[in-house]
Amino acid sequence: MNWERELAQKAAMINAALDRYLPPASQYPPKIHEAMRYSLFAGGKRLRGALVLAVAELLYMEPKRVLPVAASLEMIHTYSLIHDDLPAMDDDDYRRGKPTCHRVFGEAVAILAGDALLTLAFQTLSGLKEEGFDAGLIVKIVEEVSRAAGTEGLIGGQVVDLESEGIQVVSDTLAYIHEHKTGALFRVAVRSGALLAGADALQLQALTDYAAAFGLAFQITDDILDITGDERELGKPVKSDLVKKKATYPAVFGIEQARSLAAEQVKKALHSLEMFGSRAEFLRETVRYLLHRKS
Amino acid sequence: MNWERELAQKAAMINAALDRYLPPASQYPPKIHEAMRYSLFAGGKRLRGALVLAVAELLYMEPKRVLPVAASLEMIHTYSLIHDDLPAMDDDDYRRGKPTCHRVFGEAVAILAGDALLTLAFQTLSGLKEEGFDAGLIVKIVEEVSRAAGTEGLIGGQVVDLESEGIQVVSDTLAYIHEHKTGALFRVAVRSGALLAGADALQLQALTDYAAAFGLAFQITDDILDITGDERELGKPVKSDLVKKKATYPAVFGIEQARSLAAEQVKKALHSLEMFGSRAEFLRETVRYLLHRKS
Repeated sequence: MNWERELAQKAAMINAALDRYLPPASQYPPKIHEAMRYSLFAGGKRLRGALVLAVAELLYMEPKRVLPVAASLEMIHTYSLIHDDLPAMDDDDYRRGKPTCHRVFGEAVAILAGDALLTLAFQTLSGLKEEGFDAGLIVKIVEEVSRAAGTEGLIGGQVVDLESEGIQVVSDTLAYIHEHKTGALFRVAVRSGALLAGADALQLQALTDYAAAFGLAFQITDDILDITGDERELGKPVKSDLVKKKATYPAVFGIEQARSLAAEQVKKALHSLEMFGSRAEFLRETVRYLLHRKS
Repeated sequence: MNWERELAQKAAMINAALDRYLPPASQYPPKIHEAMRYSLFAGGKRLRGALVLAVAELLYMEPKRVLPVAASLEMIHTYSLIHDDLPAMDDDDYRRGKPTCHRVFGEAVAILAGDALLTLAFQTLSGLKEEGFDAGLIVKIVEEVSRAAGTEGLIGGQVVDLESEGIQVVSDTLAYIHEHKTGALFRVAVRSGALLAGADALQLQALTDYAAAFGLAFQITDDILDITGDERELGKPVKSDLVKKKATYPAVFGIEQARSLAAEQVKKALHSLEMFGSRAEFLRETVRYLLHRKS
């Protein structure tokens, strides 16, 4: 399989869906819709959304039926980046190679654009009913997504991340930050796809294990890229974690050990896919890619 | 009926529900849960939540079954206040008589506490399943609430409000701001209660009309209170709209005409309740109260 082409096709499907779900930039009041679209379409690989589609496909479900979940998770991911970049948080000027939302639209609109994307994410999930899913299953997805995005997920990770700046953290704290700040959305991406496609308990467990290892490998390699990456390819300044004294894997374990921890998680993720045979090739390639990603 | 006692009973039910739905302040990471609780329990009359309960009761449904919606709307209301008060938005230091969230916990935590309350609002809606409602109806409520909270509701109103500061607005713009910023949540409160309690089309229409008039009367009297109110009773500085040159009813129509516009909306709201006879007394008293409210 040509993984890059597959990923690009999935990203194109997700982008087209996002374009449909978002109000047009001209809709009144235009500024908020421009800001939402600016950040949502500023690039991004759509990995979370692609995992939703890939898991549905793996379990013989037409991927377009789960597009509302894929789009919803990309909205949540983008909202979290907009708010993380704010002056009161990480105070970043560039993201995906472009000025951050608040640099272009001002802080007030950036805060509201984030709020609006988070809100629209749940509206989009309610749209799963058009795809004929059982309503009880949709309510379950709303619950899993809100848990993943809230203080027992994404937001919890972000809080501890901010609190840990400039202090030496223990590896438990580091694991908490990464499992929550990054891991929770990957986990719910994979699980939502699996639940909607009717995974049985064994399949759901295997895919949840895959997601956990994937999320950790993603974050470790993200931390490494902040040190070794190329600024143009990343679209944001490198070494910003170092400057902010962020809690990272290389900071706690050193770069070589961080690399082997990432490789270990990739192995774990691959192992958890064994029962799916060749149908899981996209999921395998996606986790392998983490070890040589450049952005 | 003793309206004040009824309202206090409803508020107590809602507060107890909020206390159950929110993670304990001690739950890791504690700071975010403290901040969420600080703002949510800083006071507030719980009018939105009380309307949900009252409409359910009106239609012979046990009010405790709709508590998840009442709590969810109060979470959304509080999140919007936390974000509105931020330095980048209205930059307010006091709310409900206490220092605003960002003054106590810092801007970063205040932004995240708002995000977390918005997220928890949707998780709480998914909890309607424990009350035995049809899942299709729950999905419909998730959709209505997200629309009311998003750019076609609350956030849209907030954006136009911010854009209108310092400029002379026409009455259409003023109506847009108020219908969206304030009206949308009152509307969805009443409609959610009605939908969950199985309102027929005529009842739903009458209650929707009530909510529209209620929301407008609420906002006009809110604008008037900013000029004539007592700082201690309001729990926030008066005349802040004037200082910020906000678009308000008194600013556009003068205070006397604003008063008669409010009275007109109250009359309209009462008229729309006719079909419900004496069972609608709480809803009647609640809208009458707007004309003599002090906070």
